Amino acid sequence: MTTGFCSRFHQAVELIGARWSGAIIRVLTGGPVRYSALRDAIPDISDRMLSERLRELEAEGVVTRVVLPDPPIGVEYALTEKGHALGPALDAIAKWAHDWVPAEPNVPADMPATSSGGRRSR
Amino acid sequence: MTTGFCSRFHQAVELIGARWSGAIIRVLTGGPVRYSALRDAIPDISDRMLSERLRELEAEGVVTRVVLPDPPIGVEYALTEKGHALGPALDAIAKWAHDWVPAEPNVPADMPATSSGGRRSR
Repeated sequence: MTTGFCSRFHQAVELIGARWSGAIIRVLTGGPVRYSALRDAIPDISDRMLSERLRELEAEGVVTRVVLPDPPIGVEYALTEKGHALGPALDAIAKWAHDWVPAEPNVPADMPATSSGGRRSR
Repeated sequence: MTTGFCSRFHQAVELIGARWSGAIIRVLTGGPVRYSALRDAIPDISDRMLSERLRELEAEGVVTRVVLPDPPIGVEYALTEKGHALGPALDAIAKWAHDWVPAEPNVPADMPATSSGGRRSR
């Protein structure tokens, strides 16, 4: 039996799977988070990427932006009902990752070599 | 409470979320499928993209390639145990998609216009 292709499934999996989106949603499942705390919770994400992903997730109705009225004025990001509904899917992915993905992450071998060659002379 | 970032979760969600990977795995949950049937089951995927994704999923140990000995000689793709273990996660994503993604897919507005302009003369 072949499970048929479903464009809604396809859209959903690509929404979650867009670079960093899953991680962002996962962090927000713990509750509303300020931008700076969100950035700190996700190593290696750039400000530009985080802003872009948050805008996309807002546009998808998964994340909402809440301006905090009390000083110091700030902004928190929170999951919408649609975003919270992703919890079971993300939990299932986390379980699979725990069962099947090796604990030691592979350090990419193509890190720029900063200690040799290519230095600017000045 | 903030849910901490987990690189294994991040790897898992990006594996599933890579363009078309979720769709490919989803089709294979129904059982082993020949390359041509897999391509037919996923509208819009190119041969090049399907081959590339299958190679990646093989490298990740999610998909295995089985050469069929009986004529006509062919190749089937099947999920490994690691791939089958993704079932609950994909089911949960499918449920979310069913609940939250509108049934009518948005037709992209940037489809190439084949009926006007830009024709080659010959």
